[in-house]
Amino acid sequence: MGRRNILSALPGGAAGIGLMPISAASAQELPEIRWRLVSNFPKSLDTIFGTAVEFARAVGELTEGRYRIDVFAAGEIVPGLQVLDAVQNGTVEMGHGPTYFYSGKDPTFTLFTGLPFGLNTRMQNAWFYQGGGEALLNDFLAKYQVCALPAGNSGCQMGGWFRKEIKSLADLKGLKFRIPGMAGQIWQRLGAVPQQISPGDIYPALERGTIDAAEFVGPYDDEKLSLYKVAKYYYYPGWWEGGAAAFTLVNLEMWQDLPEHYRSVLTYASAYANGWMTAKYDAANPKALQRLVAAGAVLRPFPAEVMEASWKAANELYAELSAGNADFKRVYEHLIAFRDDQYLWWQVAESGFDAFMIRHRRG
Amino acid sequence: MGRRNILSALPGGAAGIGLMPISAASAQELPEIRWRLVSNFPKSLDTIFGTAVEFARAVGELTEGRYRIDVFAAGEIVPGLQVLDAVQNGTVEMGHGPTYFYSGKDPTFTLFTGLPFGLNTRMQNAWFYQGGGEALLNDFLAKYQVCALPAGNSGCQMGGWFRKEIKSLADLKGLKFRIPGMAGQIWQRLGAVPQQISPGDIYPALERGTIDAAEFVGPYDDEKLSLYKVAKYYYYPGWWEGGAAAFTLVNLEMWQDLPEHYRSVLTYASAYANGWMTAKYDAANPKALQRLVAAGAVLRPFPAEVMEASWKAANELYAELSAGNADFKRVYEHLIAFRDDQYLWWQVAESGFDAFMIRHRRG
Repeated sequence: MGRRNILSALPGGAAGIGLMPISAASAQELPEIRWRLVSNFPKSLDTIFGTAVEFARAVGELTEGRYRIDVFAAGEIVPGLQVLDAVQNGTVEMGHGPTYFYSGKDPTFTLFTGLPFGLNTRMQNAWFYQGGGEALLNDFLAKYQVCALPAGNSGCQMGGWFRKEIKSLADLKGLKFRIPGMAGQIWQRLGAVPQQISPGDIYPALERGTIDAAEFVGPYDDEKLSLYKVAKYYYYPGWWEGGAAAFTLVNLEMWQDLPEHYRSVLTYASAYANGWMTAKYDAANPKALQRLVAAGAVLRPFPAEVMEASWKAANELYAELSAGNADFKRVYEHLIAFRDDQYLWWQVAESGFDAFMIRHRRG
Repeated sequence: MGRRNILSALPGGAAGIGLMPISAASAQELPEIRWRLVSNFPKSLDTIFGTAVEFARAVGELTEGRYRIDVFAAGEIVPGLQVLDAVQNGTVEMGHGPTYFYSGKDPTFTLFTGLPFGLNTRMQNAWFYQGGGEALLNDFLAKYQVCALPAGNSGCQMGGWFRKEIKSLADLKGLKFRIPGMAGQIWQRLGAVPQQISPGDIYPALERGTIDAAEFVGPYDDEKLSLYKVAKYYYYPGWWEGGAAAFTLVNLEMWQDLPEHYRSVLTYASAYANGWMTAKYDAANPKALQRLVAAGAVLRPFPAEVMEASWKAANELYAELSAGNADFKRVYEHLIAFRDDQYLWWQVAESGFDAFMIRHRRG
C-alpha cells in the first residue's frame, strides 16, 4: 500500500489537463509506478491474454516506461476465476477479462460482457462508449470497490463441440454440456445438464464421454484444444455470446489515487486494447475455421427449434431475474432498449451488405 | 519549419522505450509542439469532423498539453478536397479524413477507405491492424510524402436519396446521381450520370430537379441535409461503402522527425479515434433512421437486378484498373483475398446471430 500513499500525497498538479499547455515541471512530478495485472486466462491464449499484454505495452509506451504494468496469467498469483476478488481486496491493482465469470455473485455481471441474445460486438462498443453502458457498468462495480474500462471483444463466438448431432429439442434431454454461467442456466431449461469444467479438462472429458459437448470460444482459440478429434460437430451461432466484452478492472481506491494523467493513459490504452482484441480474433478466425474443417470438424447450425426454445427460455429467465434483482432489471432494460434500436438499423444497411457479400464470395 | 528543425536536432533519447523504465530526464526533453490538422469535413458533422477533435483531445491529454493539435474544418485553411496536398507540401502537419477523395490521382486511394463491395467495418480494422493493410497503405502513401493511421470508420452507409423509385436497371438510364469517385464510375457503367456536388448544394439541386438522386453518408449525417423533403426514397445498402475508413494523415518528414514518444501518442490516439467514430455513428444512426421514416422517408432496398449488375460492373472495372496500375493490382488482390476469407467466417457465427436477432427484435 506504500505506493498508493505516495500517490495520494502528491500535489494535485495532475488535474485539469485537457489541451491547456502546462509547465514542464509536472512531467517530472509523475511518479514511477509498477502495478500487477492478473488475467482470467492462460498465456496460451494469445488473443485474450495477449490483449492484456498489449494494454500493458501501451501504458508503458505512453508513459515512457514510468508506469509499468506486469501481466500475470491465471494461476500465477490467483486462480483465473478470482480476478475480481483479487482486485477488490487489493491483492493486485488490476485485472483483465470478462465480467460474466462473476454471475454467481450477481447475474448483473453477465449483462456487461454479453447477455445471451444481447448485443453484437459493435453494438456493445456503441452502448459502452456512446449509449450509457459504461456509466451503468461503473455504477454497479462500485459495490465491489472496482472500476472498469472496455478492453477487448471476441466477436460472436461459436456454439461449441458436440459428440452427436443435435437434430431436435429432444436431443438436448440430459445432454451433459460444458457451458458456464447464465447460458448454462438457459440450457438447463432446455433439458441439458450444464457442466463447469476448466479448459484443460475439456478434451479428456469429451474423449471419455464424461460430457457430451463443450463450448469454448471460436475457431482460433478452439483449435488449440483440438476438440474436433473427440466431438466433431461444431455448432453455431454461439447465441449466448453475440459479442463478449473484456475489461480492465482497477481497484477503485487505487484508481482514485492515480494522477489524472495516468488515468487518461489507462483510458486510452484500454480503448486501444479494445480494438486490438477484436481485430486479432477477426483476422485469425477465418483461417482457423478452414483448418478445423479440413481436419474433420463438421459445421452445423443449431436447429431452428433449438434457437426458438432458447430465445423463449432466455426471456423467461430474464423476467424472473428482473423481478428479484433491481440492478439486473435496470441494466437489462437499458440494454434491451438499446439492442432493439440497434437491430432496427442493422437490418437495413449492415446486414443487407453482409448478406449480399456472403452470397457472392469467391471460391 | 523551425519547429521541425528543433525536433530533428534532439538527441536520440526518445528511441527504444517499450517497457524499460528510463530516466526522468527524458520527459523534460519532450518539446512543446503545436500542430495544425485539417479535416475534409465541416464542423456541422459532429461524427467525422468530431473524430478529429476527439483525436486531438486525446493527444493533448496524453502529453499533458505539451503536444497540441488545432483542428480546422474544410475551407478554413484549405478546401476539403485538398487535405492530402496540404499535408504533402507541408502547409499543415496533419489531415483527417478518408483517402478515396484522391482517387482522381490514383484509384489505389479508394482501396484503403473502402472499395465498393469490399470489406465491412470490422473486416477493415482486422485488415489494417492484423492483416497487413496498414503496411500496404503506408508503402503506397510514401509516394506522396505522407503516412497514415486508421482513425475512424462510418460503418456501412446508405445508398442515398432518390426522387423516383428504382424498380429496374432501366430506371438508371440517364439518372443524374450525385455520387463521387469509383462508385460513380460503376454507376456510369449502369447507365447513370454521376454528378460531383458539394454537400451544401445537394438540397437545391434535388429540389430543382437538376439531379435525380444523391448519396451522402447514413441516417445521422443525412438527416442534417433534410433530403427526405425533396427525394423521399431512401435506398440501401450503400454497397460502395460497406465500411468507410478515415485516417490521420501526417507529413512523412514531420512524422520521422517527431520524438518516438510522440509517434506512440499519435498511434494510440488514432486507435482511440478509430473506435470512437464507429461507436458514435452506431449509437446515433438508429434514432435518426426512425426520425427520418417518421418524417416521410421511404426505405427501399436496391432491386436484386441493380445489385447484380453493380457487382458485375465493379468487378469489370477492377480488372481493367488492375491491368493498368500495379499498385492497384497489388493492394486489390490482397484485400480481396482477405475479404473472401472473412466472409467465409462471417457467414457462420456473426451473420447467423444477427439474422436471428433481426427476426426477433421487439416492437
